[in-house]
Amino acid sequence: MLIEERLKEIQEKIKKKVPKGIKVASVEFEGPELVIYTDDPKTFADQDDLIKILARDIRKRIVVRPTILEDPERAASAIRRVVGENAGISDIFFEADSGEVLIEAEKPGVVIGKNGATLRDITREIGWTPKVVRTPPIESSTVKQVRQYLRAAHQERKELLKRIGRRIHRDVISKDQWIRVTTLGCCREVGRAAFLLSTPESRVLIDCGEKPDSFEATPYLYVPEIHPLSQLDAVVLTHAHLDHCAYIPLLYKYGYEGPVYSTPPTRDLAAMLQLDYLDVVNKEGKTIPYSSNEVKEYIKHSIVLNYGCVTDIAPDIKLTFHNAGHILGSGIAHFHIGDGLYNVAFTGDLHYGKSRLFNAAVNHYPRLEALFMESTYGGAQDMQPSRAEAEERLYGVFREVLERGGKIIIPAFAVGRSQEVMLAIEEGMRLGKFPPVKVYLDGMIKEATAIHTTYPEYLNSELRNLIFKEGHNPFLAECFEQVDSAEKRERVITGEPCVIITTSGMLNGGPVMEYLRNLAADERNCLVFVGYQADGTLGRRIQKGWREIPIGNRETIVVNLDCITVDGFSGHSDRRQLMNFVSHMQPKPEKIFAIHGDENKTIDLASSIYKKLHIQTTSPMNLETYRLI
Amino acid sequence: MLIEERLKEIQEKIKKKVPKGIKVASVEFEGPELVIYTDDPKTFADQDDLIKILARDIRKRIVVRPTILEDPERAASAIRRVVGENAGISDIFFEADSGEVLIEAEKPGVVIGKNGATLRDITREIGWTPKVVRTPPIESSTVKQVRQYLRAAHQERKELLKRIGRRIHRDVISKDQWIRVTTLGCCREVGRAAFLLSTPESRVLIDCGEKPDSFEATPYLYVPEIHPLSQLDAVVLTHAHLDHCAYIPLLYKYGYEGPVYSTPPTRDLAAMLQLDYLDVVNKEGKTIPYSSNEVKEYIKHSIVLNYGCVTDIAPDIKLTFHNAGHILGSGIAHFHIGDGLYNVAFTGDLHYGKSRLFNAAVNHYPRLEALFMESTYGGAQDMQPSRAEAEERLYGVFREVLERGGKIIIPAFAVGRSQEVMLAIEEGMRLGKFPPVKVYLDGMIKEATAIHTTYPEYLNSELRNLIFKEGHNPFLAECFEQVDSAEKRERVITGEPCVIITTSGMLNGGPVMEYLRNLAADERNCLVFVGYQADGTLGRRIQKGWREIPIGNRETIVVNLDCITVDGFSGHSDRRQLMNFVSHMQPKPEKIFAIHGDENKTIDLASSIYKKLHIQTTSPMNLETYRLI
Repeated sequence: MLIEERLKEIQEKIKKKVPKGIKVASVEFEGPELVIYTDDPKTFADQDDLIKILARDIRKRIVVRPTILEDPERAASAIRRVVGENAGISDIFFEADSGEVLIEAEKPGVVIGKNGATLRDITREIGWTPKVVRTPPIESSTVKQVRQYLRAAHQERKELLKRIGRRIHRDVISKDQWIRVTTLGCCREVGRAAFLLSTPESRVLIDCGEKPDSFEATPYLYVPEIHPLSQLDAVVLTHAHLDHCAYIPLLYKYGYEGPVYSTPPTRDLAAMLQLDYLDVVNKEGKTIPYSSNEVKEYIKHSIVLNYGCVTDIAPDIKLTFHNAGHILGSGIAHFHIGDGLYNVAFTGDLHYGKSRLFNAAVNHYPRLEALFMESTYGGAQDMQPSRAEAEERLYGVFREVLERGGKIIIPAFAVGRSQEVMLAIEEGMRLGKFPPVKVYLDGMIKEATAIHTTYPEYLNSELRNLIFKEGHNPFLAECFEQVDSAEKRERVITGEPCVIITTSGMLNGGPVMEYLRNLAADERNCLVFVGYQADGTLGRRIQKGWREIPIGNRETIVVNLDCITVDGFSGHSDRRQLMNFVSHMQPKPEKIFAIHGDENKTIDLASSIYKKLHIQTTSPMNLETYRLI
Repeated sequence: MLIEERLKEIQEKIKKKVPKGIKVASVEFEGPELVIYTDDPKTFADQDDLIKILARDIRKRIVVRPTILEDPERAASAIRRVVGENAGISDIFFEADSGEVLIEAEKPGVVIGKNGATLRDITREIGWTPKVVRTPPIESSTVKQVRQYLRAAHQERKELLKRIGRRIHRDVISKDQWIRVTTLGCCREVGRAAFLLSTPESRVLIDCGEKPDSFEATPYLYVPEIHPLSQLDAVVLTHAHLDHCAYIPLLYKYGYEGPVYSTPPTRDLAAMLQLDYLDVVNKEGKTIPYSSNEVKEYIKHSIVLNYGCVTDIAPDIKLTFHNAGHILGSGIAHFHIGDGLYNVAFTGDLHYGKSRLFNAAVNHYPRLEALFMESTYGGAQDMQPSRAEAEERLYGVFREVLERGGKIIIPAFAVGRSQEVMLAIEEGMRLGKFPPVKVYLDGMIKEATAIHTTYPEYLNSELRNLIFKEGHNPFLAECFEQVDSAEKRERVITGEPCVIITTSGMLNGGPVMEYLRNLAADERNCLVFVGYQADGTLGRRIQKGWREIPIGNRETIVVNLDCITVDGFSGHSDRRQLMNFVSHMQPKPEKIFAIHGDENKTIDLASSIYKKLHIQTTSPMNLETYRLI
């Protein structure tokens, strides 16, 4: 059926359900949503459960928008009047193309009201569809830029969403029935995650990252399976780390024109890290694979989904993100294929245990037949101490190094480990576990922290309460200080004993190199690894015991400082957690593919799951294709 | 390096090796061969082993051709003079574009002379490169047409070979190293054989057949792995049966422009069966996937290789065919990849046992790491009686049915089973095993037999001797009579008790349907199955015991006649032979993929080989991709 006929049919169906007096002007697919345009959104909003009933009948995500919109000035004062002073509204943005108004408030709950009552009142008053976001406690320039850019590109984005929407809701035509996954990277190795999920109807790429030890090791994007890129239906991003997202902008350079689905924080963190990545590549004098223009294309094409939101992304595929516990916004991507035909999930990176920041990864699903799971710590020996033990160990190191007048360098991913370690340090210092000391943050860490506070609903409830109910924001503690210039860095290097948390996490570039260059020779100092060091990275080499490190063409750094690995802060599950994640799964999947781990670890994990839990397992190689059905 | 520079370099190298006085005018890649053009091919031919030495040094197959050619009239009389009357030359064709002359003779050995001495004499006299073929004892219209067509298209073909040659000999550029096989059909099923072998440099399609029970079940040609077809380096055809070759012409319709490699008889048999296939499809009123024009394209692009001839087909792939023992010209395709990197072979269909027509399949190779092997009779129960037992059984059925005044219908593939059964019947009748009787051949059987006698070097030595040394050609025995009109068929149906060997072999169309329609009701008659009946075919249904068969929309055939399966004539190895084929292999491969068999049979064979012979085995599904390295 032609899409126009389809829309007409849906419109007729809606008209029959809608009470007389409400005029349905038109319906349109915009991205995954079905938008109902009406002259009378106020009356529409008054009908309890009408939208829910329509969504269930038509089996689409439905939003209602007014055909004609209230004047922004007048609408703004109406909002302030309805909501009241109490909410602390910090800004109101009108997006004419979508008919949405973004309300930024210190207390978004007040704007929403009980069961959304205040929101409905607003809709009734102004026509515009209100979207409420929290005023971030720390202002993030990334979030600001992303929002500004999306507003500037709104007209283009409206057209684009319409095109994407019509593609998603096209007819299913093939008589064949199969589901395949092609491994384009990240198998028997850590890095360059990229998996192609395909059916006779659709093709979806999951992640598209870099390999940490090399700026050139992209996923195998040159094989014919994913070409032409213009025919891909969707890209799904599990989380913002570069080994999962670095090459997504590249896809737009090579002809991709479709959407990238992720959670909202993943979109902002990914854009931040991609821009930083370009900067680092540039400084290293290496070939820059894409420019900031392609990062903008990515933002323009991004469609964000919250955890648990079931969404059509292709005629035969529904996507739902579930919390993966790894970093802010990290999601397990669950795909429901066909009408009850099959379900497969990709964990991305996974932490099955509660941390200071997040809840444990979700492992209960309505249905699940196949699972692609990470195996970073999948080896039989990969046991990590508990978070409490790890923190005590860290405090001990601090005491020792500070006592001897040394400086502590903690290389960490800007996103994830940094915040986790900051929270541990803040509490340790507050409880007197080690002497008060300045903690300098260098690289993108402060900005990443700001993004964390922009999305409190993605933090676990204890931390959210601490910040928003008890008014104690540990990220704003006095001990933390941003390093934002070369001069400041110089002062830190020559100054008093201190703690420096800095990127990159595996010592492959970034400001950490500058600290290493200046502080490595002094044996009073200490380098503390708190995250996974991938094979081939400088971090791994130093961890292994290298003591002379060639930098660039001529320079060599002599490593005299202490090198200590404090296990237990990882955002990855250790072996025990991985096994527990699977053994407590509901339902038990039929097939598990162990990916994202060194060769021996994926093989070990696959064979252990098979032996212990009697689930069919595989440790795939890159460039293979597996039939799921 | 540019290909022109490469050729120049080779030319310089050759010039240094060639004795002074011989002028090398130019060198050119034409298909897989390197052609040396010289004004002085006579002197070239005089140099013992010069071509061998050059071939070894340059590592290419080398042919020498004259820059200027002798006048055809004068050259023809020179050939007749040098060769003498004795050879029985029946025709001489000059192919100006290649500088070759095709000499068709009753005794090709005489034209060739001892160790090729006479051939060298001819070359010295006339400049043209002589190619000798045998005057077929039964004239084949297919062979005649194919040769005529190739001559007519010679100019176009010369250009095409040049283009293919330059593509084959392009530089290797990728730094990656991997070998993959994608299954596009024929896994856990019989039919629609199609496998894609790919490396970072090259892509080769092995076979492209139909599924016997359906004219629509092509291999999965719509998946992106083999697109664009214009980028495929080669198609390799193991043998001429339609489940391996039916859709090769279709590739030219959809953009393929490269070569199809096969043995010479496979090319002719395939063309014959493809044209017949189009005819059958047309008569059934089904959609015709391609026309005879695409069959012509296939012939124009075919490059024939004899068993054992090692040939470059891509910058990093060498192909060698080895006898598969299944039908005339059937080959096991052995691929040597990279410079000693890896070897993989595809058996096509396989008979590991001597038959009346062929020697047993080859299972000794210089090197072999992976094997894709057929599993038609791979189930633990799939034991076949010996050929001698099978023949005695057949003679017994003949005696019984003829005695009661019945007719015997033997549905058989035109190519393979028909000839094998003809030889058995001829001998049985000669030895008085059953009363003399007319044996009618309907469908393409006579033409297929003619092609057999055109390529005696592809028959086993006993049969070749019988025909050519002892002068007894069993295919020309008096008992055999061709049915070549509807009237004749009518006379056979209403006439005396007789034997009818007719196509198609699995009762999916063809003249056998006419015999069934008219003879099935009479219980004195007998239907004798001598070949494999694939799942879903009418043959399989009758074998299972169906006694009322709907034909077309309205008609129903009532089956009263005897239905007997005489096992043991199959061109496929039975379970014991398959196991023996593997256990006697030299070298023992590291990996075996069991394909071309019903699901339970491929799984059974794979697991038995693993248990008994300790070789890693897999029973792949369609649409999967396996890494070999």
